Amino acid sequence: MANYRKSAGEILARIRANKPVVHSITNYVVMNSTANVLLAMGASPIMAHAAEEMEDILAIADSLVINLGTPSRSWIESMELAGRIAKDKGKPIVLDPVGAGATKMRTDTARRLIKSALPTVIRGNASEVLSMSGQGGQTRGVDSIHSMDDAVEAARTIAQSLNTVIAVTGERDLVTDGERSLIVSGGHSLMGYVTGTGCAATVIIAAFLAEERDAVTATAGALSFFGLAGERAALRASAPGGFWVGVLDELYMITPEDLERGARISQV
Amino acid sequence: MANYRKSAGEILARIRANKPVVHSITNYVVMNSTANVLLAMGASPIMAHAAEEMEDILAIADSLVINLGTPSRSWIESMELAGRIAKDKGKPIVLDPVGAGATKMRTDTARRLIKSALPTVIRGNASEVLSMSGQGGQTRGVDSIHSMDDAVEAARTIAQSLNTVIAVTGERDLVTDGERSLIVSGGHSLMGYVTGTGCAATVIIAAFLAEERDAVTATAGALSFFGLAGERAALRASAPGGFWVGVLDELYMITPEDLERGARISQV
Amino acid sequence: MANYRKSAGEILARIRANKPVVHSITNYVVMNSTANVLLAMGASPIMAHAAEEMEDILAIADSLVINLGTPSRSWIESMELAGRIAKDKGKPIVLDPVGAGATKMRTDTARRLIKSALPTVIRGNASEVLSMSGQGGQTRGVDSIHSMDDAVEAARTIAQSLNTVIAVTGERDLVTDGERSLIVSGGHSLMGYVTGTGCAATVIIAAFLAEERDAVTATAGALSFFGLAGERAALRASAPGGFWVGVLDELYMITPEDLERGARISQV
Repeated sequence: MANYRKSAGEILARIRANKPVVHSITNYVVMNSTANVLLAMGASPIMAHAAEEMEDILAIADSLVINLGTPSRSWIESMELAGRIAKDKGKPIVLDPVGAGATKMRTDTARRLIKSALPTVIRGNASEVLSMSGQGGQTRGVDSIHSMDDAVEAARTIAQSLNTVIAVTGERDLVTDGERSLIVSGGHSLMGYVTGTGCAATVIIAAFLAEERDAVTATAGALSFFGLAGERAALRASAPGGFWVGVLDELYMITPEDLERGARISQV
Repeated sequence: MANYRKSAGEILARIRANKPVVHSITNYVVMNSTANVLLAMGASPIMAHAAEEMEDILAIADSLVINLGTPSRSWIESMELAGRIAKDKGKPIVLDPVGAGATKMRTDTARRLIKSALPTVIRGNASEVLSMSGQGGQTRGVDSIHSMDDAVEAARTIAQSLNTVIAVTGERDLVTDGERSLIVSGGHSLMGYVTGTGCAATVIIAAFLAEERDAVTATAGALSFFGLAGERAALRASAPGGFWVGVLDELYMITPEDLERGARISQV
Repeated sequence: MANYRKSAGEILARIRANKPVVHSITNYVVMNSTANVLLAMGASPIMAHAAEEMEDILAIADSLVINLGTPSRSWIESMELAGRIAKDKGKPIVLDPVGAGATKMRTDTARRLIKSALPTVIRGNASEVLSMSGQGGQTRGVDSIHSMDDAVEAARTIAQSLNTVIAVTGERDLVTDGERSLIVSGGHSLMGYVTGTGCAATVIIAAFLAEERDAVTATAGALSFFGLAGERAALRASAPGGFWVGVLDELYMITPEDLERGARISQV
């Protein structure tokens, strides 16, 4: 696993050097916080949803985030358009199927986007990811009702059948392309008391994918980076307000060397 | 008033145990901050506005917030739909008529929503609430231009005529169902220098209503909880940035026992 | 330059006394943070985009912000309507052409808004402002690719041809009406690691314009105020999370006397 840890640090160094542009079509709740996450870590956020400028935006973007947190018909059309353009341009795409399994609209939209955009990575909690499998899985709001252990085999199967990398985040995170499967540890329980931490993980994955084409390596690196930021922030703060301020601080302060030392990645 | 204080603590304990799901159709400005408020205090926020998924969302929601802060035609249609569904399902509804009295669109929309959704609680500042009465009341932006004292009698009359609980928040807060009338003290003047504090009070009321069907008790408990968080945060911070971080921290840290001791509720 | 510094303090004192209402039609990413900026400094934010209430909103607004950060057709129509109403009422308008030069939609929209609304001030980074000149200027996301020195002459020419005040912000800020040209120093490199700092500068300019009709004086005062807040915040925080909390604190704490002493404005 030393390789994955080393890669994590190297990718972070490239992000700091190149400031990759991450384009998000995401939900209203987290736009401010995920833009701040990307800036703090050294990447460049763009948010734009109008069909009229999608070609222009994706011409300057290095990766694309599609997040279903507050869907509506016109935004979904833009997501589908953006997905097709990014796929054609060969730019990495991360799909965050927020609330899939909880509403038919979200489940159906996520499945349709997977078919048309062929996302590089799909990140969700266990029940969101399970709902992509057609095996059911009910979601209570955006919280998971399945344990991650339940989800490992399902995630492998889904990754293989969809030909993508699946990231199931929770107390520990699972990353799998169906063949290689990694567990990433880190983070802190306070993350559950701040909005948009899952969405933050998603945009960090997109920034890592902009600088690393092996999607398992990029995703494991991104999640270990976010986990380390959470761990370190929790050393200084014991409640959600100060904790989130601390996470933004740590995303800025953690060096590539810190990450290489601190990443906690293991094989399943 | 010992009863109301005791109930406040008990409701908070139930929120921490049950993590009720609060669905908000609200304004763009406060989505992030009110989601953080709900998470910090131990509840579960959902934000969704598409008509297509309203039934599914309200099937998992324990209460509904309708907030008029940045209205548009299509969002108002979703608010009306959500109001009807929640009413049919018997789920508590809080209406926050942001800016009612300031624009005809908001005044008319609020009045229409009251008729169709029969909200459990309406929370606003004095001029917003007065504008619901047909007695006029001009609003300058979202700030109140009437003193609360002016509003007590009007609030009682409005509560009776609309068959709802009215919460008028300001330096002190008034809660009335037309018969029982309570004053809640607490908070801090710094709340006026942070956006969305009124909207935060509204979502906290919705979380309390999810766990307590007596709406006067739930609303007084919620406002005393938020007031206590503001008071405690002001002990540690003297300017708005740090103050709001502190409010989020306190919403997480205040225990049911703290609230039972610290709630300041009196009868008018 | 002592005059400009003195005026900056005097305008801030008037803002604190009068709490001018700033209406923003802006992007989703920064709504929360720019509302907090306006409140912290003592002004009153309104955000509203529905055509149906634009007359009512602008009747109570003292100035208008139009920000192109997340454009869509219906919002652009509202911006055009708001621009025409504000112009007719003689209320100052600040245009923030976020991403102009990066997409044709934004460049065209900004140019059309300039013609129809005749904004009092246009604030952008160097490449955004250059894209208003028809001289080209490619924008990489919302970041500048031109140095400010390149832009001084262009800004003067643009200000004269558009009959407006141009504010080009970057490491140092330029303010010009084509005849008077000022440089404002201040701020801190951490501002580049927080979202919406440019948009924050824009709303502060709008608050200053509400209390001072000489637009060069108002704009230089606003930028020196924001710069001073950034400088002072950076004395207490060394990473973006705590830095932004500190900026909000400083916008509240800086007195008119502090600003008169601390503003750094010089003539070109």
